[in-house]
Amino acid sequence: MKARIRITLKNGVLDPQGKAIQNALSALGITGVDDVRQGKYIEVQLANTSEEQARETVERMCRDLLANSVIENYAYELAP
Amino acid sequence: MKARIRITLKNGVLDPQGKAIQNALSALGITGVDDVRQGKYIEVQLANTSEEQARETVERMCRDLLANSVIENYAYELAP
Repeated sequence: MKARIRITLKNGVLDPQGKAIQNALSALGITGVDDVRQGKYIEVQLANTSEEQARETVERMCRDLLANSVIENYAYELAP
Repeated sequence: MKARIRITLKNGVLDPQGKAIQNALSALGITGVDDVRQGKYIEVQLANTSEEQARETVERMCRDLLANSVIENYAYELAP
């Protein structure tokens, strides 16, 4: 089972990487961009487990290691 | 319109960040993890445009700035 995890900064947390991308896009002449936020994307291949077990493992990963819950949110999808 | 862009390393490209996460997970006692790959996740808020125009803008962003097409793939979804 594969988990696709997205980790994003919470609203209100400054995102200098996103701002740098936004400036670079504008320097390239790409217009119409109101806001850019950069986050992390992590794909985890889990050994054969039930969906419920996989969900539990992924929640634990995110809470304990991947996301800093003070400034980051996480979301994930499971796929077979 | 909002674009959610995922940038991942191509298969076969070494991913030391992913390996570090995998080792850290195992050190935390989280088992059953076969593989971890880290990528980037970028949310772009586009000024009001048609879906077709937005798709074109996002393709251009990914090709010209966000993804290194030698070693990375990109995928994205558009949401209103």
